[in-house]
Amino acid sequence: MRDFLPADVRKREYVIKIIKEVYESYGFEPLETPSVENLETLTGKYGEEGSQLMFKILKRGEKLDVSGGEKGLSDLALRYDLTVPLARVVANYKNDLPKFFKRYQIQPVWRADRPAKGRYREFYQCDVDAIGSKSMIVEAELISAVSEILQRLGFDDFTIRINNRKLLAEILNQVGISPLKHTDALIAIDKLDKIGIDGVLNELDERGVEADKAEELIKFFRVTSELLNRFQTIFTTTDSRISAFIKEKKNSIERTIPAINEAFVIEFSKFFKTSEPVYSGLIEIEQILSLMSDGNAIGAKRVIVDPSLARGLSYYTGAIFEVRLESGDFAGSLGGGGRYDGLIGMFGKEEIPACGFSLGLERILVVMDERGMFPEDLQNASAADVMVTIWDENSAGESLKLANELRQAGLRVLVYPEADKLGKQFKYAAQINASFVCVLGDDELKDNKVTLKNMRSGEQETISRGEIAAKIKEMQTAK
Amino acid sequence: MRDFLPADVRKREYVIKIIKEVYESYGFEPLETPSVENLETLTGKYGEEGSQLMFKILKRGEKLDVSGGEKGLSDLALRYDLTVPLARVVANYKNDLPKFFKRYQIQPVWRADRPAKGRYREFYQCDVDAIGSKSMIVEAELISAVSEILQRLGFDDFTIRINNRKLLAEILNQVGISPLKHTDALIAIDKLDKIGIDGVLNELDERGVEADKAEELIKFFRVTSELLNRFQTIFTTTDSRISAFIKEKKNSIERTIPAINEAFVIEFSKFFKTSEPVYSGLIEIEQILSLMSDGNAIGAKRVIVDPSLARGLSYYTGAIFEVRLESGDFAGSLGGGGRYDGLIGMFGKEEIPACGFSLGLERILVVMDERGMFPEDLQNASAADVMVTIWDENSAGESLKLANELRQAGLRVLVYPEADKLGKQFKYAAQINASFVCVLGDDELKDNKVTLKNMRSGEQETISRGEIAAKIKEMQTAK
Repeated sequence: MRDFLPADVRKREYVIKIIKEVYESYGFEPLETPSVENLETLTGKYGEEGSQLMFKILKRGEKLDVSGGEKGLSDLALRYDLTVPLARVVANYKNDLPKFFKRYQIQPVWRADRPAKGRYREFYQCDVDAIGSKSMIVEAELISAVSEILQRLGFDDFTIRINNRKLLAEILNQVGISPLKHTDALIAIDKLDKIGIDGVLNELDERGVEADKAEELIKFFRVTSELLNRFQTIFTTTDSRISAFIKEKKNSIERTIPAINEAFVIEFSKFFKTSEPVYSGLIEIEQILSLMSDGNAIGAKRVIVDPSLARGLSYYTGAIFEVRLESGDFAGSLGGGGRYDGLIGMFGKEEIPACGFSLGLERILVVMDERGMFPEDLQNASAADVMVTIWDENSAGESLKLANELRQAGLRVLVYPEADKLGKQFKYAAQINASFVCVLGDDELKDNKVTLKNMRSGEQETISRGEIAAKIKEMQTAK
Repeated sequence: MRDFLPADVRKREYVIKIIKEVYESYGFEPLETPSVENLETLTGKYGEEGSQLMFKILKRGEKLDVSGGEKGLSDLALRYDLTVPLARVVANYKNDLPKFFKRYQIQPVWRADRPAKGRYREFYQCDVDAIGSKSMIVEAELISAVSEILQRLGFDDFTIRINNRKLLAEILNQVGISPLKHTDALIAIDKLDKIGIDGVLNELDERGVEADKAEELIKFFRVTSELLNRFQTIFTTTDSRISAFIKEKKNSIERTIPAINEAFVIEFSKFFKTSEPVYSGLIEIEQILSLMSDGNAIGAKRVIVDPSLARGLSYYTGAIFEVRLESGDFAGSLGGGGRYDGLIGMFGKEEIPACGFSLGLERILVVMDERGMFPEDLQNASAADVMVTIWDENSAGESLKLANELRQAGLRVLVYPEADKLGKQFKYAAQINASFVCVLGDDELKDNKVTLKNMRSGEQETISRGEIAAKIKEMQTAK
């Protein structure tokens, strides 16, 4: 967990502002939930990893019962994600919310994970979810909104990987893996990216999937992973002829993806031995692709089917997503999401369909920092436009008054906090990067004037007090 | 702890925006610290109440040792205020921060307090602190900044009560109370407002302050509390002649306060049997009053000396503040603060002076809600400016495309998430308070047109698709 000094906070706020603007432009409304949830609300929603990584809160005073080990010690925990709290809110406040509730939520979550690059124990999730509809229009709009955010932040090598839990289940059924072994098989397959074909085969074996079925399964993923690898090679190649040929990666991504997706649909058809997409997961994927390309939606050419994408969380029921950067040192996930039609029903009487995306603020910030993607004026931010000096203790009240006059004119004004040598005061003004310094000395006070120094140009002049704000604003515009 | 639905979040963001704008206009910079601190960082900083009300986090896995009772169970706790984390940051990052560090911080803190009106277990503090100077210019500027926030939010009955811990100690010394009993005496005196003179005498007795000294002490506070009560009566009177006479409370507050402060200074002089303010606490109070009235600073006529103000936290060393509302059902504190020149030294080698204010967001919101102080457009907020209907599944992609076109023009656009009867779609548009609905049916698609309904006037017309965004923006401006 980290402290954020002013320069860090400004970067975070820059990214959050863009995320909020885009989500609001899609009709999503803000929601906030408490940092602390009842332990029973969170239990059993995140799979085995989740319950290990949760931060639990010690009961207080007489409620504390140390006799029974860990039980009796805690009934509250820190928020682990923003999806489960949303599901609880939707179930609790059903009558106060519109039939279709579209919300975004940007708040910290806590996981006792081993820290790594761009991974912290306290981190912000930027979630967007649409509640109440089973239509794939929801998926298509979510992908567009997330794509628009990434575009506006300046990412040109992102893809939205999509897959579908129903399709994964159908693939597992097709090779004859028992539903009881589906979770194990999915955990193994999800690692294909990291541990390769042989690694997955090992893990399937360790998790008790029979060898012949594992081999059958891997036959399919061998083909699809080959296709995806070829796609990724485009972005990670060090072959200068290929790089020269690609030049503009953005165009290259957008030209390549539809071909990959078509190839996958053919592979699925071969695998299921049917030319029609009769399998519900595949139908949903095709609906999303078609909705987006029909409308030429933002992000349409960024959606790529990734048959081995499984996602860790246990509550997904349909489409699943992952936001990937395809090039550079940080090739990895910026976030993900999916459909979870069963989760809200766990908190209320009614099954309510839902689908959403979660972006990781810290991952985004790490990459933007490395790639120098922040606008220049963020780098040169200052605490104030103007610093007003303190001449001596007797005139300090007048300096405070001058500062207020300048603030009324819309300037950010810092008063040096004590009487001190002028040289020290100017040195401090330079340290905090103030553009202007106002000196209100005995002579100036007598003549109702102010000496104004432009810290960028070094120029200095004495101006009548009534004109000082206008003069500063004029010089600000000129620069 | 509570959930904030969209209407709540918008109100919170409205208040936070004003607070940030004002603090930034005074040259304060944003800081954020983690929600979780090491237990030892927090221990011993908040007095006896603090350690009872702290939320501690259960150690995980093998680190958990239940054999020794509460010890061994926790080494982390949720943030209890924003001042101690600031002190830790200043000590840790001394070389990365300017010599005088002015920061604001708006984040939640957690206390296992009994919930009450405007008091919650998770609540936001809006802190502003100036580090590095002992000058009373700091106090004066902080009071101005907080006063400006309250004025901009629309409060017209606030005062900033001020006192000084040194002065309190000097008063206790004067009547001969041993320094060992100072904390006990201050806890009792701080309750004068709530439990009255007799209550304080009782509490002094219970806390072991000798009767003759307690009586001597109370003689002084009897006079000052009489003065303050008379002042408060102006605002709480039900006597119609007085209320008629006051009429404009704001003016009345600002006319009365200088007279009260003068009366207090006279009382202090009598008490200390000296006509000169030789006592350091009193000198500091007079410096603040003089700095503010010289400069005619914002808030100058809101500062009132309150000799019985003591504040609970143990780290204050000089000036202490409390923001009060003087009229209405909610006569109470919106926040407070003070100088704590010793706290940062507890985390580093160096003593660094510091002074700050903390406003309670929830208290402010409760009162603003009760008094109807939020602007009208916040009350009528909608999820989107425009809702685009879905005619049928085949044309859904085109609806998504239309929505993107409107968004590019700067409109907030929500797409109905599935194909449905038009009547239902219009009903939903009304529910989310959208101002316009765009219908893209077969006929419209064929003619490259859109049917636009103005939900406020009920008027409907069919317009060419390229003109639709401009038309909506024109109607928005007209309304």
